[in-house]
Amino acid sequence: MSDIVKIFAPGSVSNVGCGFDILGFAIDGVGDEMIVKKNDQHKIIIESINGYEELPTDPKKNVAGVAIQALLDDLDSTQGFDVEIFKNIKPGSGIGSSAASAAGAVFAVNELMGKPYSRLKLVDFAMKGEAVASGDEHADNVAPATLGGFCLIRSYKPLDIISIKAPADLWCIVIHPQIEIKTKESRALLSSDIPLKKAIRQWGNVAGLMSGLYTSNYELIGRSLEDHIVESQRKILIPEFDELKLSVMEAGALGCSISGSGPSVFALANGIDKANVIAAVMNTVYKRTSIEYKIYVSKVSEGGVQICE
Amino acid sequence: MSDIVKIFAPGSVSNVGCGFDILGFAIDGVGDEMIVKKNDQHKIIIESINGYEELPTDPKKNVAGVAIQALLDDLDSTQGFDVEIFKNIKPGSGIGSSAASAAGAVFAVNELMGKPYSRLKLVDFAMKGEAVASGDEHADNVAPATLGGFCLIRSYKPLDIISIKAPADLWCIVIHPQIEIKTKESRALLSSDIPLKKAIRQWGNVAGLMSGLYTSNYELIGRSLEDHIVESQRKILIPEFDELKLSVMEAGALGCSISGSGPSVFALANGIDKANVIAAVMNTVYKRTSIEYKIYVSKVSEGGVQICE
Repeated sequence: MSDIVKIFAPGSVSNVGCGFDILGFAIDGVGDEMIVKKNDQHKIIIESINGYEELPTDPKKNVAGVAIQALLDDLDSTQGFDVEIFKNIKPGSGIGSSAASAAGAVFAVNELMGKPYSRLKLVDFAMKGEAVASGDEHADNVAPATLGGFCLIRSYKPLDIISIKAPADLWCIVIHPQIEIKTKESRALLSSDIPLKKAIRQWGNVAGLMSGLYTSNYELIGRSLEDHIVESQRKILIPEFDELKLSVMEAGALGCSISGSGPSVFALANGIDKANVIAAVMNTVYKRTSIEYKIYVSKVSEGGVQICE
Repeated sequence: MSDIVKIFAPGSVSNVGCGFDILGFAIDGVGDEMIVKKNDQHKIIIESINGYEELPTDPKKNVAGVAIQALLDDLDSTQGFDVEIFKNIKPGSGIGSSAASAAGAVFAVNELMGKPYSRLKLVDFAMKGEAVASGDEHADNVAPATLGGFCLIRSYKPLDIISIKAPADLWCIVIHPQIEIKTKESRALLSSDIPLKKAIRQWGNVAGLMSGLYTSNYELIGRSLEDHIVESQRKILIPEFDELKLSVMEAGALGCSISGSGPSVFALANGIDKANVIAAVMNTVYKRTSIEYKIYVSKVSEGGVQICE
């Protein structure tokens, strides 16, 4: 068994339009890398966070540290680890920055401990880390980051996660305006009650999206992405959201909505050619603004966190 | 082309626990029979309604008559028909009584006119008939009665119906207490606003149910049936609902909830043996009451309305 491992932990898109708080998928186009090494000091040491040095290195405050500790507690182990994090996803991006670090950390430690846990079980520990950043234990980013593909979080008590393979030609385009939206603030925008009629439309779309995923019906996936509850309340935080959405839909996107709690916006497309057209359209809309941004074009990740060879 | 046809139109279970207003499935165990015959009088004549003579025979007020007229209007035809209806489903039962008559009528007329329409298109016309009884155009009973299997009504505007084949061993048990609940009255019980948190649990379950149906995961189907919004508000109209549900769940039902707007209650089971046990348990609970009832044990209907040979 090796004493050191390097891993890639993918970013992820949660909510996915209609699936607020229950659905997410992983994307291979962007993610964190981590090097994790056993040490003899019986403690977790976050050696460095390259890319976003303002993140806490105290292992009790760092998502990777907390997630690793949750795993070690369950194993009743006092093994120590040195952790180097190479962050490519800005915190507060809406594409699962903290989830990638949490999922990557527990995956790496599980490898170094001889794989005592399944990937599904690792989600439990990663959720504990994610909670440090978002204030609540959510799985709609850590589950896809860990397992790959689409993940449905049917229920939290008990935790019930269902993996769904993405259709072969489903591509994702994400634009990440480099402004920060805190999940907590974005959640505060949401009404605590919603009209039953809107809720019915929403669960009709959720069911349609699931059907589309299982039958590789791209058009159905697209028309099911519609969100009648969250998007309209949250889009005010995202510059040019309406123009962005209109433009990518005109360019042939299957659907488009806010990624997680924003500010990132994602679109889905059938095939790489269409995905590249949509990325170009996003670029055209955003280059007129003074906001810095990044655009990622990627297939839905098949496998989640991976060891880098 | 024959001038006369006899058909069987199945009953159906709508809502299906979590899928309020968007989901339904057809059951072969109970349904209406109809004999429809061309006439030369250029009008629709509801000759008889055997079983429930209190239903209107005026074709403008009868669901079968209205549904047939909608089809003929679309065809621009003045062909007349004699219709005999043998109703086995009591109106106001919650198992799609009016939907069976509407679906059966348009299916029969379509046959006699040389099948100008697909089954999917027939749902449009059947909805017009159903609206006479329920006050609103709903498809969650007429679609499964027409198409068979499970039907998702993703959206009404535009109408977007998705058929889902039921898992091979999925059985349904329905108890129909012979009391009437009008859909309109049952709808009036529902709050117009619901908590977002409950809505999230509901669409998590809807997604889980869809996943269970596509992967024949019976346990997942069962635990996804949970309804956190409608059942608790409507069950007060159904005598012994709580005891019924508790008893069938203890007997191994996958799940149990109100069929449509009640008073019928359905349970799902994996295999006929379990289904028969659950039917016996329902019988035990209800025979202690003074209420008349019927119990049906049936596979989910594969094909919807059928011609009787």
